[in-house]
Amino acid sequence: MNCLVVEWGEEMILIDCGIQFPDASYSGVDLLTPDLAYVKRRIRHLKGVIITHGHDDHIGGIPFLLREKNLDVYCTPFPEGLLRNKLAEYSDLKEITYHRIEPRVSFEVGSFRFDPIPVAHSIIEALGFAMETPIGTIVHTGDFKHDPKELVNGKALSFAPFAEWGDKGVLCLFSDSTNAERMGHTPSELDIATSFERLLGEQTARIFIALFASNIKRIEKIMHIAHRQGKKVALGGRSMHSYTKLAFDQSSLGIPPETLILLEDLDRYPDNQVIILLTGSQAEPQSALVRISQDNHKEVEIKNGDTIILSSRFIPGNERAITQMIDHLYRQGADVLYESFHQVHVSGHGCQDELMMMLEAVKPKCFVPIHGEYRHLAKHAKLARRVGVSEEQIKIIEDGQILEVSKDGLALGEKLELEKGVVVDGLFMAGGRELFTQRAALAKAGIVFLAVFKNARSHKLLADPIIATHGLLYQREINPAEAVLEAEKKAKEAYFKYAKEPDVVERLRIEMRRFFKKRVSYKPIVIPMILEV
Amino acid sequence: MNCLVVEWGEEMILIDCGIQFPDASYSGVDLLTPDLAYVKRRIRHLKGVIITHGHDDHIGGIPFLLREKNLDVYCTPFPEGLLRNKLAEYSDLKEITYHRIEPRVSFEVGSFRFDPIPVAHSIIEALGFAMETPIGTIVHTGDFKHDPKELVNGKALSFAPFAEWGDKGVLCLFSDSTNAERMGHTPSELDIATSFERLLGEQTARIFIALFASNIKRIEKIMHIAHRQGKKVALGGRSMHSYTKLAFDQSSLGIPPETLILLEDLDRYPDNQVIILLTGSQAEPQSALVRISQDNHKEVEIKNGDTIILSSRFIPGNERAITQMIDHLYRQGADVLYESFHQVHVSGHGCQDELMMMLEAVKPKCFVPIHGEYRHLAKHAKLARRVGVSEEQIKIIEDGQILEVSKDGLALGEKLELEKGVVVDGLFMAGGRELFTQRAALAKAGIVFLAVFKNARSHKLLADPIIATHGLLYQREINPAEAVLEAEKKAKEAYFKYAKEPDVVERLRIEMRRFFKKRVSYKPIVIPMILEV
Repeated sequence: MNCLVVEWGEEMILIDCGIQFPDASYSGVDLLTPDLAYVKRRIRHLKGVIITHGHDDHIGGIPFLLREKNLDVYCTPFPEGLLRNKLAEYSDLKEITYHRIEPRVSFEVGSFRFDPIPVAHSIIEALGFAMETPIGTIVHTGDFKHDPKELVNGKALSFAPFAEWGDKGVLCLFSDSTNAERMGHTPSELDIATSFERLLGEQTARIFIALFASNIKRIEKIMHIAHRQGKKVALGGRSMHSYTKLAFDQSSLGIPPETLILLEDLDRYPDNQVIILLTGSQAEPQSALVRISQDNHKEVEIKNGDTIILSSRFIPGNERAITQMIDHLYRQGADVLYESFHQVHVSGHGCQDELMMMLEAVKPKCFVPIHGEYRHLAKHAKLARRVGVSEEQIKIIEDGQILEVSKDGLALGEKLELEKGVVVDGLFMAGGRELFTQRAALAKAGIVFLAVFKNARSHKLLADPIIATHGLLYQREINPAEAVLEAEKKAKEAYFKYAKEPDVVERLRIEMRRFFKKRVSYKPIVIPMILEV
Repeated sequence: MNCLVVEWGEEMILIDCGIQFPDASYSGVDLLTPDLAYVKRRIRHLKGVIITHGHDDHIGGIPFLLREKNLDVYCTPFPEGLLRNKLAEYSDLKEITYHRIEPRVSFEVGSFRFDPIPVAHSIIEALGFAMETPIGTIVHTGDFKHDPKELVNGKALSFAPFAEWGDKGVLCLFSDSTNAERMGHTPSELDIATSFERLLGEQTARIFIALFASNIKRIEKIMHIAHRQGKKVALGGRSMHSYTKLAFDQSSLGIPPETLILLEDLDRYPDNQVIILLTGSQAEPQSALVRISQDNHKEVEIKNGDTIILSSRFIPGNERAITQMIDHLYRQGADVLYESFHQVHVSGHGCQDELMMMLEAVKPKCFVPIHGEYRHLAKHAKLARRVGVSEEQIKIIEDGQILEVSKDGLALGEKLELEKGVVVDGLFMAGGRELFTQRAALAKAGIVFLAVFKNARSHKLLADPIIATHGLLYQREINPAEAVLEAEKKAKEAYFKYAKEPDVVERLRIEMRRFFKKRVSYKPIVIPMILEV
């Protein structure tokens, strides 16, 4: 979730503070944040938060720091705008003071001096940083790729600034490992433009393109291609509207005149003349494309022959939802193109060649692979060894691992025990892993509650025990109502047997689990409740 | 799950009867079977089950038919052996009469005459069938690819037999759609052998190869490569032992002398001389490789430098488990190679070129794509149109759809409402979709039980209500115990308010949900229980 804490003496800064969307093992959770306990304990030392770019896995966690203390945030206009929009969704937060930063214009925070270096990524205004510290220069790449064809204000973003710092001598490099398993060089954003040029050129029916609303450059390219071909573009989905509006207001998105139309006006134009840009490339339940695929979108329904392009990767964990959405779209007569089989997406992260280029440009004494699962970090570490970084100066660190950086190199410090922060409805919840294990168990076996009402002194039953169950599976031959009656009878017997035992509750639990194991072949969760007067 | 019911008058036959491993939406379920209700209602008409090959998604469902009636099963030796092993795991089943079949030796079942046609697939003895029926010939490909390099008893399996039937005239083709989205031609099993030849040749440490135990040919090739290089092979995992033993006993697996060693003897040989073939390519929880990756396998632990090869695809739904296993293996110092980045697996299913070849060989009047998700069937249907099958003679059918085949072509009949059969511990459970929705809700929101004890006539409370909860998330600031006390107080008030209402239970439920929504920001499942005397 990209929350790098950098400390020097009493000073602390953060580089990014993101969120993550939970996998199924965090049942019922809207978002996950880094475990901010450590940061909050020392928050009075926090001098500022430095933002590499505006993706949610880099800025989404900031609102949860803002409950504690006013923050100084250093970022460019686009992430600032995204943060301002985001904060509007939360209540009673402290204030952010925004420090506007610009590529190659260095600034100081505490004892650190930062040189923001522009990098190519799947969002505008992406930065890496060279950070001058009292013990040497540390380079943090942010998320990056090398894209010589893609121009920003007329010229391509090169690694020259990284090389400059490399020549001056860099103590340690922190570099993006997302694609460390992929050989070669990530294709250019321009290659995609070419695919779209062709696909739109051959267009015979409506084309829907699902992509991340934050991919402003790709959106702009598609709009210009459409314009050149005399076609119209409509936007679908809340974030598609808010992101493009922000980029347009900040004049970082050029929309060709008379290209943009409203979704409700689609039918005024011939099918082979309209392109719809929309959200839902990850099959997010409320997204425009999912609602369309389920035929419950208020303005749009699929026509035979429509083409849907998923201009995105399948983010791990979403595969099933995405392929189910694709099946629904086919059932409605659409054709669906996606990355696995058509060149309709390129990654925003560099592959092995680019990671090597970065390592060779920066020539660091020490190396720390970041931004990836363990296998990506391990592969990236191998690459660093290939360019001559010595084994003991490479550290693969996971969440909570403290890394001590000195002039001589890296040493592992204490490892903090971290729990991910779980958020429901914008509120922080206290939910350690074991709670989610408990929830998973509920879903696996169902639950049985047993209520026994007794006299506190004589232990006499004042009514027959009653049982309620939820989520229980029964064998085909079994009648659930009868099974529950049986269970209540069984519970009564068990109570008489153990009424006077100190551990009567536990005994009842065990007896009931045994009973259900016999009856339904597995043990549900059983919770006895004893009322007494 | 490959259970094709074919009926003619009063006769019924089945082609395959498989199982499927449930995704997370079937919480707590071990396996899924086809909904066999329709078949069971008419089981006295069942003349036989014809097996294309021994994969579980083709034979795994047969034990669940065997509760009803003795069955006649038509298959080759390998699937027969697998079935016999499988049935040993179930109790009180009826009998199977096995009818041994051979490639190109035709046999009759009821009014149907079958010509078994050998096909290349990722398991030995795979068959397609030409089925002569009273109204014309129907061709069923089974699972197939076209693999001209791979020899079976000295010669490659060609599509010639399919072409013969095509020349005689085929009414309808049912063909495998698994890879209908993939362009080109599936690589040969021999190409994999070449990769392994190289990988084993360069071996510097132990090599673990995880693959399906049913892929006997691949296992045999690896053993021979190891033998030629003077190396030893050990087997890990229950099914790896049982499948190879069966194939060896049936002399369809040649094991080179002195190649096989026991897992516990690994350390007697130099690391660069041992290969371990094991289960777990899908990160099945109890599999050898998963236990090794978690460092709780009794004989094997990972050494620095070990190479693990996943010679399999990531089956959709397993991606997360597999990548987590890979991360664990890296943490222990292993390197992991898998399909996405290394040529260590080829599919057993044909890509678009091969599907076109089959269509052109059979030249069917009608076409039904089978074996795939809807998107695969839709793509396959497009291919059939390309080779000239007319639009109205192509039907995409989903589970439960009755298809009426006549001399003139295809017509859609009634669509049966099917539920998948859910199996826990080898027992059929009555679990419709809504039950699993209920279980998912449990995991999402947790559950609250409320017990109220009252006088049946006066409605007076005989004790304070008590509440038990499970799987509830609380905000960081909240003390759960206090929240429950509050809830009990709230419940008492609510009871007094509604005691005399007929819908008091529902009222209590709503009040409690409101309370928790306020308290913890989401509504748990609430189940009030009223005891009365």
